[in-house]
Amino acid sequence: MKKQNSLYMQVYDYYCNLIETGKIQNGEKIPSIRRSSLELGVSKTTIEQAYMCLCDDGYLVPKSQSGYYVSNRADTRKNEFLKSPETLQNKVIYDFSSSGVDSESFDLSLWRRYVKSALRQTERLLSYGEPQGEKELREEIASFARENRNCVCDSENIVIGAGVQSLLNILCPLIKIRKSISFADPSYIQGVRVFVDHNFKISENFDSADIIYTSPSRVTRWGDTISVSERFKLSEYARNTNKLIIEDDYGSEFRYVNRPTPSLQGLSGGENTVYLGTFSKLLLPSIRISYMILPPDLNKKYREVAAVYNQTVSKADQIALCSFIRDGHLSSQIRKSRKLYLQKSKYLCDLLEAEFTENVTIGKTDSPLFVKATVKTEKPLPALLKSCEKEGLRIIPVAEKNGGAEIAFSVSAISTEKMEKGIKLLKELSVGSE
Amino acid sequence: MKKQNSLYMQVYDYYCNLIETGKIQNGEKIPSIRRSSLELGVSKTTIEQAYMCLCDDGYLVPKSQSGYYVSNRADTRKNEFLKSPETLQNKVIYDFSSSGVDSESFDLSLWRRYVKSALRQTERLLSYGEPQGEKELREEIASFARENRNCVCDSENIVIGAGVQSLLNILCPLIKIRKSISFADPSYIQGVRVFVDHNFKISENFDSADIIYTSPSRVTRWGDTISVSERFKLSEYARNTNKLIIEDDYGSEFRYVNRPTPSLQGLSGGENTVYLGTFSKLLLPSIRISYMILPPDLNKKYREVAAVYNQTVSKADQIALCSFIRDGHLSSQIRKSRKLYLQKSKYLCDLLEAEFTENVTIGKTDSPLFVKATVKTEKPLPALLKSCEKEGLRIIPVAEKNGGAEIAFSVSAISTEKMEKGIKLLKELSVGSE
Repeated sequence: MKKQNSLYMQVYDYYCNLIETGKIQNGEKIPSIRRSSLELGVSKTTIEQAYMCLCDDGYLVPKSQSGYYVSNRADTRKNEFLKSPETLQNKVIYDFSSSGVDSESFDLSLWRRYVKSALRQTERLLSYGEPQGEKELREEIASFARENRNCVCDSENIVIGAGVQSLLNILCPLIKIRKSISFADPSYIQGVRVFVDHNFKISENFDSADIIYTSPSRVTRWGDTISVSERFKLSEYARNTNKLIIEDDYGSEFRYVNRPTPSLQGLSGGENTVYLGTFSKLLLPSIRISYMILPPDLNKKYREVAAVYNQTVSKADQIALCSFIRDGHLSSQIRKSRKLYLQKSKYLCDLLEAEFTENVTIGKTDSPLFVKATVKTEKPLPALLKSCEKEGLRIIPVAEKNGGAEIAFSVSAISTEKMEKGIKLLKELSVGSE
Repeated sequence: MKKQNSLYMQVYDYYCNLIETGKIQNGEKIPSIRRSSLELGVSKTTIEQAYMCLCDDGYLVPKSQSGYYVSNRADTRKNEFLKSPETLQNKVIYDFSSSGVDSESFDLSLWRRYVKSALRQTERLLSYGEPQGEKELREEIASFARENRNCVCDSENIVIGAGVQSLLNILCPLIKIRKSISFADPSYIQGVRVFVDHNFKISENFDSADIIYTSPSRVTRWGDTISVSERFKLSEYARNTNKLIIEDDYGSEFRYVNRPTPSLQGLSGGENTVYLGTFSKLLLPSIRISYMILPPDLNKKYREVAAVYNQTVSKADQIALCSFIRDGHLSSQIRKSRKLYLQKSKYLCDLLEAEFTENVTIGKTDSPLFVKATVKTEKPLPALLKSCEKEGLRIIPVAEKNGGAEIAFSVSAISTEKMEKGIKLLKELSVGSE
């Protein structure tokens, strides 16, 4: 996939260049999507996509009701998701960014047994499944979401689909009466895209939007979450202003060091909130099973049209997951993974302290998946990132600090051996002025 | 799922009632979607959906640039797809309609082996897949489509997705510049729905539409297809009038008794045509893998946005299918199934002749999946269908003929033993006046 030549990449490169060469200064406002679209002669969607990439890569910062500004930590270019998977896999040796899962964390041979046994249910596999998803699986998911995320649900208001986008494609027509949506994390371009495709207006702030798309369990990429009282406030605000909340609880299962904060959906009593959950992070990224929990009014609407949306998940995978949950493996999988990630986080902190000694301050995160630390470096953060990238070391830049760099490390995909070598390498690269 | 109370079912029932009680006569025109929407105070989409169901169930016939008319074979109510799968499975004992596949036709234990082996590729399964689908699988599909359907394609212009709707959700935004679409088979409500969701106008005829959605390998439910010369004409017409063709080649592999007619996509040289294929019928209905082949201009557009549409098919299924095709099992599966279906069709003809003797005329179909026959009955077709339904016998009504009924039988899902009993039962029910 050559994405280098695509239109939005060209726009991306155009602004990168202006920012990197100092033609647009840090803190300066860049042209609005509308103006830029007119000036460059490309569609607003393309500009929007480019701006989102620029935000995600730390060049730009969106500001409420105002527009896009050049970030103070611009030039900390990561350009992560713009590369094709192949390129990434070839180049990145020490991956402290968040993609993928630890091969130790999931018992693939156990899952294989469940799929094998599902594939033996010949009669069931010979017919098309229920559009909403297999009822047995919906029942298991319902008790899982009730027990673990305090969700208000049963098998009847759960819809199963192959990934969050598949579910949003069903949801969008149901909430057509609403016109605009605001994303707490506008860099989630896969979500933004579905709403753009369905002609929703993307608002830059909550107040002007009819729908709020939020991930309260994952406010930042390095795992800070929203507290219960803030969730209550958000839920009340939405109710009072007649806004619909879409709660994307992606990866919430591992996001909490302590007892997990209940979902917004649960705190809202199941009203006015669409809850999205996924098993890709919990099981394997390559297993595409997600679900959504609908509030009563939308569920009623959904059931009228359910038959016209074919189920997107293979029945065998649904049967396998159902038995897997029923036999308690999902819960033990979560416990096991959390323990593993906590151990790895602890180990990473030890490594950082051993390597950087007094030149490191470990920060606090809500998640066992991430470690946040400020390290002293002789290089500015952008230069450090450049050297890291060259050597196949991938980290998540957070901010430049006086004489140091605040960095987040995900322990999700990297092995302990690679962690050791990666941190050693980071120490070496942090010394010397470029 | 109680669909009885949904809005479109109410509209459906309303018109059913008017037709069945003779308040609207055979051949009479019914109100336009627009007028009916105003009169009944429900949305045009709901009316449209109801009309489509009425068409599918034989109450209405759509006429080009004119509207909907009460069918001359109205009252042959089948009401097939409005029932939930559970209800159907409980009631239907002898199923001569087209859903499902024969359990003899697919070697599930062989497929199980491939999935098992795919699930052993631990490293590959730990990362997210390519948005477009695994490259190796796209290569296998490309040679399959080139060899079997004369398609113009390679791995680069093929997109994999979990079912045709998933692919249409990616396609629709790419062809947004076009405003209206005409469906050769308006009863394909799953397809219609995606275009309605994306704000396309559904045109009642080809001439007034920007897009033509057609299944040339499956013109009728009982398997008539479009000839090469007619395909050439359609392709030329679309090119001259700047219309885009979407060719849904669903189930084409079994549709031909003789050498299959090349796809429209191939006859058009890969230009101006989006080709849709699926493996659900070929392997198992519960395996959700489909693909689309894009023409050069749309492929260019797709590649610009490919990264924002997550792949919907599990990687394990993709890897399994890839090896399955590579090892020649798909081709042998098709040969095996065709042979099986031809044998079953032949057997069904023998049964019909043995049971009805001189009172049956076997018709001609293009497909080994279907048998079409006119049988002499003492009952009118609607009454016959009613008795059949009562006894759990499901057939496809085609037309009422002088002193007889033209019926289509699908041999795809029914076992040979059930065929025998089913035809015996049909004979019994055809005698006596209700």
